[in-house]
Formats: sequence, C-alpha cells, structure tokens
Amino acid sequence: MRALVWDGSEARVVDRPAPSPGEGMATVRVARAGICNTDLEIVKGYMAFRGVLGHELCGAVEEGPSAWKGRRVVAEINFACRAHDCSACATGLGRHCPRRTVMGIVGADGALAELVAVPVANLHAVPDVVSDDQAVFAEPLAAAFEILEQVDVSPGTRCVVLGDGKLGLLVAQVLFHAGARVLAVGKHADKLALLSRLGIETHLYAGGSPPITQADMVVEATGSAGGFALAVSITRPRGTLVLKSTVAEPAKVDLAPLVIHEISVIGSRCGRFEPALAALERGARGAAHGLDPSALVAARFPLEDAREALRAAAGSTLKVLVDPTLT
Amino acid sequence: MRALVWDGSEARVVDRPAPSPGEGMATVRVARAGICNTDLEIVKGYMAFRGVLGHELCGAVEEGPSAWKGRRVVAEINFACRAHDCSACATGLGRHCPRRTVMGIVGADGALAELVAVPVANLHAVPDVVSDDQAVFAEPLAAAFEILEQVDVSPGTRCVVLGDGKLGLLVAQVLFHAGARVLAVGKHADKLALLSRLGIETHLYAGGSPPITQADMVVEATGSAGGFALAVSITRPRGTLVLKSTVAEPAKVDLAPLVIHEISVIGSRCGRFEPALAALERGARGAAHGLDPSALVAARFPLEDAREALRAAAGSTLKVLVDPTLT
Repeated sequence: MRALVWDGSEARVVDRPAPSPGEGMATVRVARAGICNTDLEIVKGYMAFRGVLGHELCGAVEEGPSAWKGRRVVAEINFACRAHDCSACATGLGRHCPRRTVMGIVGADGALAELVAVPVANLHAVPDVVSDDQAVFAEPLAAAFEILEQVDVSPGTRCVVLGDGKLGLLVAQVLFHAGARVLAVGKHADKLALLSRLGIETHLYAGGSPPITQADMVVEATGSAGGFALAVSITRPRGTLVLKSTVAEPAKVDLAPLVIHEISVIGSRCGRFEPALAALERGARGAAHGLDPSALVAARFPLEDAREALRAAAGSTLKVLVDPTLT
Repeated sequence: MRALVWDGSEARVVDRPAPSPGEGMATVRVARAGICNTDLEIVKGYMAFRGVLGHELCGAVEEGPSAWKGRRVVAEINFACRAHDCSACATGLGRHCPRRTVMGIVGADGALAELVAVPVANLHAVPDVVSDDQAVFAEPLAAAFEILEQVDVSPGTRCVVLGDGKLGLLVAQVLFHAGARVLAVGKHADKLALLSRLGIETHLYAGGSPPITQADMVVEATGSAGGFALAVSITRPRGTLVLKSTVAEPAKVDLAPLVIHEISVIGSRCGRFEPALAALERGARGAAHGLDPSALVAARFPLEDAREALRAAAGSTLKVLVDPTLT
C-alpha cells in the first residue's frame, strides 16, 4: 500500500506492506485523513516518531471481527495495553496507559495511508447522516470536548479561546454550546468569521492585550510557544488556563504569575469520541447544539500528494484532508 | 526607627520615620520577624520592590483602635483596597485584590523594622499559649494550609513534597495531618530528620529520579527554577502539581508533558491565617494534629544585624529570625 512515512528527516509517500491485523485488531481502509498541528510538530522532531503519519481518519473496516466488517468508522488514537495489572486501563483511562502506543504519534503507524491497523476496542461506528468529511473531525472534536470533562464550565463562564486554528475553532464552538460566554481571539479574519456567523464573539488580534483581561477561563490553542504568556496575562486570579498546544521546543516561561494569581493550568489532550460523534450527528441533522465542521475543510489532496498536503497545512490554512480515493 | 531597607541595589539597616497609622490602620511593634525565600528573591530583583523588607512578624499593637492596643498579633500581608466596587474584595478574596499592596513585597513597608503599619482588618490575635517564635510562622504556615483550600487531599492521597526548605517542611506537616501519604524529598539530611521524627517518610535527593514517579499530587517548594521539571516528571497522569516557588528569573520549561499527561498545575500563594493559628495553638498545647515549628528556627539576629540575617538565610539554614529586642 501507499503511505506518508516520516523517517526522521523527510516525509515521503512510499510503498509499505499492508497491515495484517492480529488478535483484537482491525484494518480500516482510509476514506479521509486529516492533518493536525501535531503532525507538523512531529516533522519538527516532536515525540521522535518514525513511521506512517496521521491520526485523524474516517474509513471502512476491511478486516476484523465480522460484526465490524464493512462498517464506516472513526478510531480513537490511544492504543492501550488493556492488561489486568495496568491501573490506568483498569480505571477506564486507557488514554493515559503508560504502555500505550498512539496512532501516528508514538510507536504505531498512522492513517495517512490506504490502510491503517486499529484495535477493535478503539472503533466507533459513524452515524449514516454524518459524512466522511464531517466524521474525520471526530478526533479533534473529542479533544475539544475533553475540556468539559476536566473543567466545570457553568453557563455564563467568561471563556477566551486563544488561537483560530482548527482546534481553537472547534473549542470555541464546544464551549459556546456548553453555555459559556466565549470570546475567540485569533489572527485571521476569515477564520474568525466562521465563528461570528454562529453568533460567537470574536477579536482579531494584532498584538498587545486582547479586549479582556480577567477571563474565568482561557484556552491556549495557539499552537505556538508564545501563547502561554498571553494566556496567563488574561486569566483572572484563581482562574483556569486550559493548555491545548503541544510544541516541540521548550519555551522560556515565567511561572511566578501562576503562583501570585493562583491560576490553575489544566493540561488537556485527547477526549472520548462519544460526545464528539453525538455533536456531529446533531450538526448533520441541523439540530440544536449540533456542530458541523465542514466549513473548516480548506483543501483536499490525493494520497500521492500527501507531502504537499503537509506543506499546505503548515501554512495558515484550515483543515487539510487527504482523500486516498482521489487520484 | 531602624529598619532593613532594600533600595534596589543594597539592603541596609537605616533610620526611617516611624509609621503614623491613618484611618483603619494600626502600628505594630515587632517582636519577631522572619526571613522568607521571597525576601531573598526580592534582593535579586523580584517584584522590583523598594522599601522595608519582611512580611513575617509577631508583635504588639502600639497604635490603633483601643480594642487592639497592646494585644499580641500577627498580620496578613495582603493589604486589600476593600472598595465596594472591587469584585475580589467583595467576594472575600482580598488576597487577590488587584489594587492591593503587599507588606514588604509590593508598595508597602515590611516588618524587618522596629514598627510596621498594618490594616486593622489584617490583624489576628495570637493565643497566649503560642510563643512569639511560633507565632512568626503564622504567615508561611497559612501559605501551606492554602493548598488544602485549593486541592482535595483525601486520606491516602500520595503526595510528594519537593524541597526541604522552611515552606516545604511546613507543607509536608500540613498534608500529613490532613491524612495524605506524604513523601518529603530534599537535599538536607538534617532538615528531613525533623520530619522523620514526626513519622513522615523522607527521601534524601541526590539527583536522578525520586523513589516515586506516579504521585497523585506533587508540591513544588524547592524555591528553584529547576524544581518544576522534576515535579512534572513524578506527577501521575491526571495528577496535580501544586506550584509554591516564585523565582525572579523566567525558566526554560517544557510544557508538553502537562498536555500529554493532562496534569493540573495549581499556583498557590498566601492563605487564611485562621487554620494556621489553630494548628499552632494545638501544637503549643501538644494536642493532636498540632504543629510546633520551633525546631525550624536556626538562628536569630538583632535588628542592627538584619543584613547579616539576610545573608545567613541565603545559605541552606532553616528559619532565620530577626528580634528587634536583642542588641
């Protein structure tokens, strides 16, 4: 099969043996794969990953248990050990299993390929009404919903979302539907306009201080090392800063304001797929509190051009998809 | 009066006009003042403070409302504005009042002097059974108790306290009395011995990894920039890192592990004095869950030698007190 492989110095589409699923595994034929900022960090050295890139996908089960064969699916990306002696797995926190591999990030091949191997336990069926283009957002949307699992967002909570990239735009919508008073701050008028259309307050950031400095909660989703200091500066005393960006390089950070203002910094990563798929289904049906991410798709490339897709995603475009059915 | 004044380049004992208390203020004649790591950071440039140093004191009210005159007191260090339009003050969080001054730290003269001016609202009477040497620990002990106001410490919670300085030793005792399973990690056998004697598990740290790597909660009280990375490395996924150290210099920090392991970092500063004074009273009476910090006093100096006291505190000694009644 063809696959986008990162060898530590270059990302290239090459031939690769098709995965043959072992016990408890399934093979998914990829219909769509998304490119995420994490992929861009990996090709800068993050996690020292080698292998097939990509961890956002929608596809159809090609090999695996008969109950799953042919079904349209998305897949959670943390492959937990599920051993009886693993306290993370035993307590339902397989996403934090210390022995886990992570699709396209840690020790497991990813989805920017014709086929990808996934534990059956990680599969989620996609509701018929949700298109492939929508379903491929299940993973980043689950990461946005993760915030609601970690932090109490009451109606009226003043939330600032820093960053108008893919994740920032999804986070702003999730918090908005949860009843928060959201201000989305970003550098791109066209991206912010996607939120304004939904009734979400936005601010085009041109340096300096944003128009709010005492936020109850700030979500740092800029994907850049510099976002943290800005986030700290606009969080109110005893407020909450949700940290979403993972960057390859350590940054120089002044931690003293966290102590002085007793700010809580909540690291937030992957989430459960269930609320994400439910929101996508509501969105596809046009129901209340639904979420339709289709407008975030900026470009699509055939798998042979996945390298160019990576390059396109590194610009300031929104979601770049790879569609292996295109030629 | 005489006072230890930091002018931005040098700390010297000089003559200074005695404070004359205005409306709502009292003057306290200092019987004991303690030197804190924050004082040592201030003379490295922290907070750009100028004026009389010191924010840990016990003394007697010399001028002020008749109800307070002559009473032995300690004083909270955040001088809130108490204005009706201040949301921090209105919600009982004067410690986070944006217009506050802070004794010996921000815009208000401190306690390393014969006399110090303090808002009457900040005074707390010291129980007779608590000595001056014990009472002077009310402020750092309140900072240790602040953790219990911010984080749920259940019996059995596995807590690691990093740092065997004054604050670290107090934090370890407070968490131990709260029912946590505490491991205190430090670099000084003599200081750790103070905790071992109380039945608290200790580990003499000589680099590398401490003997525990999956702590539910880690309190970073090393007072050094390098403590943060170590604290992150031993906090379990979804665990809590309480940040107590304030250092003058920004440090190079890798924030990615916070996101990957979804760690919560809780900045923690000053606390309410009530639980601290109650614990000191129980300690002085030899009651259960009491706390007697007398063993932490390493040296005492007359006010004229306060500069030497500062130097002594900068070594690895425990609490250095200044006693203006000594000559």
